[in-house]
Amino acid sequence: MIRIIGFDADDTLWHNENIFDRAQERYRQLLARYHAPAEVDRALFATEMRNLRLYGYGVKGFMLSAVETAIELTKGTISAQEIREILANGQDMLAHPVDLLPGVPEIVPALARDFRLMIITKGDLRDQERKISESGLAAHFHAVEILSEKDGAAYQRVLRRHGVAPEEFVMVGNSLKSDILPVLELGGAGVHIPYHITWQHEHVEEAPQNQPRFRRVDRLGDLPPLLAEL
Amino acid sequence: MIRIIGFDADDTLWHNENIFDRAQERYRQLLARYHAPAEVDRALFATEMRNLRLYGYGVKGFMLSAVETAIELTKGTISAQEIREILANGQDMLAHPVDLLPGVPEIVPALARDFRLMIITKGDLRDQERKISESGLAAHFHAVEILSEKDGAAYQRVLRRHGVAPEEFVMVGNSLKSDILPVLELGGAGVHIPYHITWQHEHVEEAPQNQPRFRRVDRLGDLPPLLAEL
Repeated sequence: MIRIIGFDADDTLWHNENIFDRAQERYRQLLARYHAPAEVDRALFATEMRNLRLYGYGVKGFMLSAVETAIELTKGTISAQEIREILANGQDMLAHPVDLLPGVPEIVPALARDFRLMIITKGDLRDQERKISESGLAAHFHAVEILSEKDGAAYQRVLRRHGVAPEEFVMVGNSLKSDILPVLELGGAGVHIPYHITWQHEHVEEAPQNQPRFRRVDRLGDLPPLLAEL
Repeated sequence: MIRIIGFDADDTLWHNENIFDRAQERYRQLLARYHAPAEVDRALFATEMRNLRLYGYGVKGFMLSAVETAIELTKGTISAQEIREILANGQDMLAHPVDLLPGVPEIVPALARDFRLMIITKGDLRDQERKISESGLAAHFHAVEILSEKDGAAYQRVLRRHGVAPEEFVMVGNSLKSDILPVLELGGAGVHIPYHITWQHEHVEEAPQNQPRFRRVDRLGDLPPLLAEL
């Protein structure tokens, strides 16, 4: 019997990956005279993965890896002015208005009347706090957890800290890898709402099989009627 | 009667500002042929303050502001190779071994037997978690709070979340501004242990006056005998 709903934030409550996508498109254009787009993408992703241990997730790490990759890909011939553009690009991302996904402004407050809601997200502390505050949704959430990683151990700590049993918990999010699989593993329920773009690092081929507590829906509006059966 | 002790982390449990200091010295050297050291410091600090709202505290924001300032101060003539050095500099900071302050390895475990200990720090999520983990002290702390800002509202949220009354709480740290003044304001106790370097942003001229719950000591070893009288 579900009593607590955990929501991922980026690409679950509001658009995010499309902002990264547009930033990456500008980045490809900036480097277009040096390399083909696919090579730019490959090199940037490799830098991001190499730096993940030091930087963690979020826009600031993306910016730093983008500068590093640009220097690498141009063999040091990129101009300071072009690097300035990469930084300005990232600052635009950090200042981007919060754009709620369809259904969120109605469904979150409605669910908050019957369930305890939590936000469980990862990324830069300041950036996520800004988005939560700007979203206008903060008052509906009983707790906000901004984590450096969303794996089984991290979910276990969060559930323990809030005195939540996995049986009464469902996690809702767009990433099978970060939102759904670790929660199912702990005995919780998971509802996957895919976003139309998935960052390569979050990509998982297969939906979970033989998992009675897993569902996939197309939109947040499909969530409420499911909750009684999880 | 004190029951819970909150510890700041950087420059209270382990060295930090000396790492920033060395990084800033390398940065001054890199820009020495363009500007005098004092001008480099002034410009970097101005960029950091301008970006604080977007980046928050921590090494990644420092790195991004250092790149931006270098481009500005050299009117775009800085080379990509020099920018690469600024990034490498920052990555060294993020990988720097945790160097505990004197007394910490003995006093923290001893206090943990009689008090509930918490770490209350700000900065980059991933970086602070790494340092806490590498410090070997994690097991002695009942809770770790990594915040985007340490002001009165933030302390109030933390105390409420953990069911702690200000009367039974003392905060120990090197920053009057972030560790002591907001806690005294809430009715808690504060013990200031200055570090030999203070970042300009954390600088406060005056120690609190007429505050019976404020103490200043030279070293962590002076803390335990004070706790009974706060």
